Amino acid sequence: MSVTAAGGWKASGVVAGTKSAGGLDLALMVSDVPAAVAGAFTTNKAPCAHIQLCVPRVAAGVSRGVLVSAGIANAATGADGLRDAESLAQAAADGTGCPPEQMLFCATGVIGPRIPVDRVRPAVRAAVAGLSPEGGDTAARSIMTTDTRPKQALLRTEGVTVGGMAKGAGMIAPRMDVPHATMLAFVTTDAVADASVLRHSLSAALPPTFNSISVDGGCSTNDTVLLFANGTSGVRLADEVLSEAVREVMARLAYEIVSDGEGATKVIRVAVTEAVSQEDARRCARSICDSLLFRAAVWGGDANWGRVVQAVGQSGAEFDPGRVSVSIGGVELAREGTATHDVVPVPAGEVPVEVRLGLGDSSWEMLTCDLSPEYVRLNADPLVPTEAP
Amino acid sequence: MSVTAAGGWKASGVVAGTKSAGGLDLALMVSDVPAAVAGAFTTNKAPCAHIQLCVPRVAAGVSRGVLVSAGIANAATGADGLRDAESLAQAAADGTGCPPEQMLFCATGVIGPRIPVDRVRPAVRAAVAGLSPEGGDTAARSIMTTDTRPKQALLRTEGVTVGGMAKGAGMIAPRMDVPHATMLAFVTTDAVADASVLRHSLSAALPPTFNSISVDGGCSTNDTVLLFANGTSGVRLADEVLSEAVREVMARLAYEIVSDGEGATKVIRVAVTEAVSQEDARRCARSICDSLLFRAAVWGGDANWGRVVQAVGQSGAEFDPGRVSVSIGGVELAREGTATHDVVPVPAGEVPVEVRLGLGDSSWEMLTCDLSPEYVRLNADPLVPTEAP
Repeated sequence: MSVTAAGGWKASGVVAGTKSAGGLDLALMVSDVPAAVAGAFTTNKAPCAHIQLCVPRVAAGVSRGVLVSAGIANAATGADGLRDAESLAQAAADGTGCPPEQMLFCATGVIGPRIPVDRVRPAVRAAVAGLSPEGGDTAARSIMTTDTRPKQALLRTEGVTVGGMAKGAGMIAPRMDVPHATMLAFVTTDAVADASVLRHSLSAALPPTFNSISVDGGCSTNDTVLLFANGTSGVRLADEVLSEAVREVMARLAYEIVSDGEGATKVIRVAVTEAVSQEDARRCARSICDSLLFRAAVWGGDANWGRVVQAVGQSGAEFDPGRVSVSIGGVELAREGTATHDVVPVPAGEVPVEVRLGLGDSSWEMLTCDLSPEYVRLNADPLVPTEAP
Repeated sequence: MSVTAAGGWKASGVVAGTKSAGGLDLALMVSDVPAAVAGAFTTNKAPCAHIQLCVPRVAAGVSRGVLVSAGIANAATGADGLRDAESLAQAAADGTGCPPEQMLFCATGVIGPRIPVDRVRPAVRAAVAGLSPEGGDTAARSIMTTDTRPKQALLRTEGVTVGGMAKGAGMIAPRMDVPHATMLAFVTTDAVADASVLRHSLSAALPPTFNSISVDGGCSTNDTVLLFANGTSGVRLADEVLSEAVREVMARLAYEIVSDGEGATKVIRVAVTEAVSQEDARRCARSICDSLLFRAAVWGGDANWGRVVQAVGQSGAEFDPGRVSVSIGGVELAREGTATHDVVPVPAGEVPVEVRLGLGDSSWEMLTCDLSPEYVRLNADPLVPTEAP
């Protein structure tokens, strides 16, 4: 249970036939009453059709829910793609009896092709018919593409429930902006909250969560996070309490996305400290997370700290190679620029990488996963519905 | 024949024992007479020891040659590493009877460990003893790490010979500056030329050649290009003729590096046109070359133009998705933002990718290679002397 854990939420998932691998591929989640909404969308300059649809509707601050289609990204589809998105959102609005502008639509999958709307429309009716307060799990399965498992998170605090679902796998290196974030994530709560409060919570939660993960450095055309609050608990939390709950749910979903990244066998947690500025720390962390060489070494079990230093050196951040210290898996391998320890095998599971720059007091943390031959294979097969968007 | 094709040049290659895979790993190339020299070095902020040694010696403008060690990068080795480099250059200078400051030294291999100087010094003597006007081929083999074949180029024009050798394979995305360019490349000529003319030729040739290739986006700690002119032909070419010959030799070596990139089966030639500025065209080209998703698709034979659009969208360049046209393998797959053709298989060998942005009249071209599972395997094995530096 995730998006239907909060009061007043129903969801469903059905087969529409858009995913070439088959299976559930259309999810619907709907609030019993109009909910406040905030959204974050990709900064990629080729935003998909659903982002053009969602941005103005989310800006209005009120929504009843969202229809999500998996298998085809509806990106690079021009004006036709936008009409397709509008038509499917309309079908969901008609079915649930809400004003059209209160129904959102998201898609994820292969960039380029159009969604076969005539085939999907009947499935929308089935999704409406299947809406249930127990439908969260099915919805979470229905938004998956190359994900190997559904991603859900749930948190209860002071009489309020916050739940979320996400999908990821590949083309994952979100750089989202409010109002502009292919990962998809949907967070629902029954807290009482205005759209402006939700926007603030989302803005604050994005940088350390979804915007600090990378599977493959690909900032998708479709990345979207939607945060809904329908107020059915009757509880208005202090802003900071709500923000913290939203951040926690988003952080768990972000971790799930990385740990189920395409081909991933290990999560790499990169912490950069003692940087001159937070922006420099972030640049270093991102450069390490973007390093194919380091990520391939981790897949092979090799704690190759030299590749960490190389990545930091090309990050653009202020850097003195004579001051940098690197630990991998809790073992210090280099201190002030030179080796202190023979290279050791990396641990299984989560691999902590700590880089102390020795220059200042700013820090940043990012998550990535190892790079395996399986990642390449998954993305080389044109028949696999592979893009995360 | 490459670096010894020009008059007055001798070279050799021997086994020093620094390459864990065994085989030739120490090359020496020496001019009979002092040569004018220019160099370009990595902009990575963790430059290896040999760059610290070379920068001032190259700035002096006169050199007799260079000793090149393969297997260990001598990077992230601090003051000890610089002393090791000086000691080996000294041994080569002693053996060839030149002033110590006229002998250069370069290294490539694993970042972190020190070069076992005591083991390499006797090999330097063997390299000196083996110097021969026919030694170019052996030298080109001796600088290889994960390269599967030597890389050489040769050009004769107006009574002058220009020859070069290079090594590449991985950690290849050079961003070199004069005086500051793990690829290594060495170009020799018997033209008469001042160091200032060589510097100018090298500066002009870098952006469209070595600085426009990428195997894996990793800008190495060791990237170095050295250009020598010993004047033994007695011919002073017009500056533009010499520059063009140098550019042509560097372009051929750059192509060789990409086509032998780690795990590569195809060369991808990315041409971005109709950009608002050359810098924007370059950003787009680099973003496409850095896309794991697109490069994996090409390995799989899938002309996935959607991933091209996604990469351009995240490049930071000015971009209108409604105006972009994409051709792969000579087939137009998208015009003004939407699909015009079913996805086709990519050709074998070289894959041309053309992206017309429809915004201006600036263009740039870059070369990369496809991403294969073999790339990951090569870089996951700590026993393979894998870094290109």
